[in-house]
Amino acid sequence: MAVSPLAPAAFPSLPAIAGVRFATAEAGVRYKGRTDVMLAVLDAGSVVAGVFTRSATRSAAVLDCQAKNGLPATGAAAILVNSGNSNAFTGKIGATSVAAISAATAEILGIAPERVFTSSTGVIGEPLPHERILAALADLKDGLRADAIDTAARAIMTTDTFPKGASATVNVGGKTVTIAGIAKGSGMIAPDMATMLVYIFTDALIDHASLQAMVSGSADGTFNCITVDSDTSTSDTVLVAATGASGVQVAGNDAFATALTDVMRDLALQVVRDGEGATKFIEVQVSGAADAADARKVAMSIANSPLVKTAVAGEDANWGRVVMAVGKSGAAADRDRLAIRFGDIWVAREGYRDPAYSEDETSAYMKNPELVIGVDLGLGEGTATVWTCDLTHGYIDINADYRS
Amino acid sequence: MAVSPLAPAAFPSLPAIAGVRFATAEAGVRYKGRTDVMLAVLDAGSVVAGVFTRSATRSAAVLDCQAKNGLPATGAAAILVNSGNSNAFTGKIGATSVAAISAATAEILGIAPERVFTSSTGVIGEPLPHERILAALADLKDGLRADAIDTAARAIMTTDTFPKGASATVNVGGKTVTIAGIAKGSGMIAPDMATMLVYIFTDALIDHASLQAMVSGSADGTFNCITVDSDTSTSDTVLVAATGASGVQVAGNDAFATALTDVMRDLALQVVRDGEGATKFIEVQVSGAADAADARKVAMSIANSPLVKTAVAGEDANWGRVVMAVGKSGAAADRDRLAIRFGDIWVAREGYRDPAYSEDETSAYMKNPELVIGVDLGLGEGTATVWTCDLTHGYIDINADYRS
Repeated sequence: MAVSPLAPAAFPSLPAIAGVRFATAEAGVRYKGRTDVMLAVLDAGSVVAGVFTRSATRSAAVLDCQAKNGLPATGAAAILVNSGNSNAFTGKIGATSVAAISAATAEILGIAPERVFTSSTGVIGEPLPHERILAALADLKDGLRADAIDTAARAIMTTDTFPKGASATVNVGGKTVTIAGIAKGSGMIAPDMATMLVYIFTDALIDHASLQAMVSGSADGTFNCITVDSDTSTSDTVLVAATGASGVQVAGNDAFATALTDVMRDLALQVVRDGEGATKFIEVQVSGAADAADARKVAMSIANSPLVKTAVAGEDANWGRVVMAVGKSGAAADRDRLAIRFGDIWVAREGYRDPAYSEDETSAYMKNPELVIGVDLGLGEGTATVWTCDLTHGYIDINADYRS
Repeated sequence: MAVSPLAPAAFPSLPAIAGVRFATAEAGVRYKGRTDVMLAVLDAGSVVAGVFTRSATRSAAVLDCQAKNGLPATGAAAILVNSGNSNAFTGKIGATSVAAISAATAEILGIAPERVFTSSTGVIGEPLPHERILAALADLKDGLRADAIDTAARAIMTTDTFPKGASATVNVGGKTVTIAGIAKGSGMIAPDMATMLVYIFTDALIDHASLQAMVSGSADGTFNCITVDSDTSTSDTVLVAATGASGVQVAGNDAFATALTDVMRDLALQVVRDGEGATKFIEVQVSGAADAADARKVAMSIANSPLVKTAVAGEDANWGRVVMAVGKSGAAADRDRLAIRFGDIWVAREGYRDPAYSEDETSAYMKNPELVIGVDLGLGEGTATVWTCDLTHGYIDINADYRS
C-alpha cells in the first residue's frame, strides 16, 4: 500500500522516557513477515490512566482495561498490544484470551496480572490465536530496550500507511519532563470518548486521579474531534503511562496538561492524515453557534457528510453541500445569518452567495492538500474545530475487500 | 450514465387519475436537450397535502409549500417542478423566484397563487433563472394531457438513472379509487420527515386534515426509512393530491391508507434502487430492541455505515462491521444477546460466531443483488426495517465532480 500523500516526511525522533522499555515480535497472529506484537514495560511506581471507546460492543481487551484502570495495584506494569485481530465480538472466549495473555505476561515479568493492560486491533469476530502471542513472550522480554518506541509504533499498524509518533518536553519548576506517544488508526475512525490505539509515556510524577482527569479532558478536544468515516471502532483505547522517573510532580500543572494535549492532538491529526484513501486533510471550523454542543453537531455533520467529502476529493468548491450538512445537523441555524468560507475565501454570507465570490479563486484553493472549511452561524458564541479527510476511490478499494 | 442494475425492468403502466393533467417542457434551466419542467394541474375541489424536509436550510420552494399547505383556498390547483437547480440557499432572491413562478402559473391557469405548489431540485446555491420557466408556461398549458404522468416522471430527474412510478387501486364500499405517483431521488438521500420529490395523485374524496394525517403517518414507515448516503436534502418534498373525482369518500378508510402507504413504499424503494452508484439493494431488519426508537437507531447506524456499505459492495460477509455499527448506534445492546444474520444464514449468536457458520455459504449469499441484514438484540419488542444500498466507486465518480 502506498504511503498516504498527507504523511509527515519522516517518523519523528522520539526521546526515550526514563522507566519505559519496548520490544516487538513477529507472532504471526494474522500478518506474515512483519511485527505484530509490541510490549511496553513500565518500572515500579508508574501510573497508567486511559480513555476507551463507549461502543456497546467494545472488545474484550477494552473491557479488561476499563476494569483495571485505577486499581490500587502497585509495582511494575506492562502494555501488550497485538495487531491483525481485534478480539472483539468473540464472546467468552475473547475474555479467556485476554486473561491468558495477562497471566502469562505477568508471570514472565514478575508483576501483578492487574498491572498488565492489553489491546488488540484488526479483524472483528475471529477468535484470537493468543497462544501465538504467548509463544513470543520470552523473546519479547529478552528484547526490551529503552530506545525502541519507533518499532512499537510499527508493530501496532493495520491499514495504516505510516507509523505515528509525537513528543514534547515541558519545563516544570526549572526541571524537564518528557512525553512521547505513538498511535495507530486509519479507518473506522469516529472516536467516542477516545480513539484507536494510542500509547503515551512520560517520566512525570503524578497520581492516577490527576492523570486520569488530564487524559479525559484532553481527549475531548483531540481524539474526540477527529473522524475519518463516521464509524466508531470497538477497540478505541488511549493509555497514558507516567513513570515518575523525573521526580517532577505535575498534578494540576497547566504546562504539563497543555503539552499532553499537544501530543494527543498531534497523534490524532496523524490518524486523520492516514485516513483510508485520504488525499486531502480538512479542518472544519465552526463559530457563532448557539452553544458549543451545537457547534460540534454542525462541525461533525460537515466532517461526516459523504457528499462534502467526495466534493473535496474532486477539488470541487461545492459549498451547497456544506449548507446541506448544516441544515441536517439538528443544530439551530438561520439561513440568512449563515456564512461559509473555504480557507480565507468567503463563498456565502447572509444566506446567499458572496457578491465577491470568484469561482476561479476558490477552485484554485481547493487544489491544496490541506483545506479549511469555515462556517459561522451568526447566532451565539459556540465554537468547535474538528478534523477529517476526503472520501475517495482509495477508501472503497481498501474496504470493499478488507476481511478477505 | 448507465441505468442502475437494480432498476425495475420497465417504467410501470400508470393509470390516469380523473381530475389531473400533466405537461412537460424543455426550459433549459440547467440541462440541455431534455425536459426539465413538469406541470400538473388539478381540477377544482382537489385537496393537496404534503410532508417536507426538516432541514434548517430548506429551500425557498419548500418554505413556500409549507406556508401554503392546508390553506382554505379552493378552486383548481397546480404543481410545478423544475430540475437542474434547487433554489436552495439563494437568500431573498430565492423567495422572489418562487413568488414569480407561482404568480405567473396562477395567472395563466386562472387559479389562486396560494394553490400553486412548486419544487426545485438540483444544484444548491445558484440563483434560479426563473424567467426560463416563465417563458415555458404557455407551452406547458397547451400541452396538458391526462395520460402524461410518465413524461412528468422523467422531467424531474437529476442524477436519477431511471424514472420512478407506482400505482394502486382500492375497493372502497364497492367502488374503485385509484392512486398513482412519481418520485425522483438518487443521492443526498437520508430523508427527515419526507424525501426527495414525490408527487402522488388520487381520485379519492377526502378533506385536507384527513389526507395530511394519512400522508404524515405513511411517511414514517416509508420515506423516512430509506437512506442512500446519510445526507439529508434541502428540498425533500412529498405532495399528495386528491381530486375527489371518484366521488368515493376515503377519510379514515384503512384500505385506502394501506394502498397509499404501499405506493409510498414502492416509490421510496425505487429511490434506493437508484442510489448513486448502487449495485446492491439492502434491507436492514432489526428486532428485539428495547423499543422502536432504539431499533431505528440500530437499523440506521447499520444502513449509514460506510464500512458496512463498502463490505456489501465487495460481496464480503463482514459481519464484524455490523457488530461495530450496533455498538456505535447509541441504542441499548448486550453483546452476549446479539444475533446477526445475512438473509436466513445466522452468522453470529450470543456474542460469538455461530457454530454452524459457513464462510462459503455466506459468501455465496453475498453475491445476490438484493440482501437482507438481520439483527436481533434480544432485549425487548422493538423492531424496525430500513432500506439502503451499497457504497461503490460509482458514488465517488458521481459526486467528486457533480457541480462542475
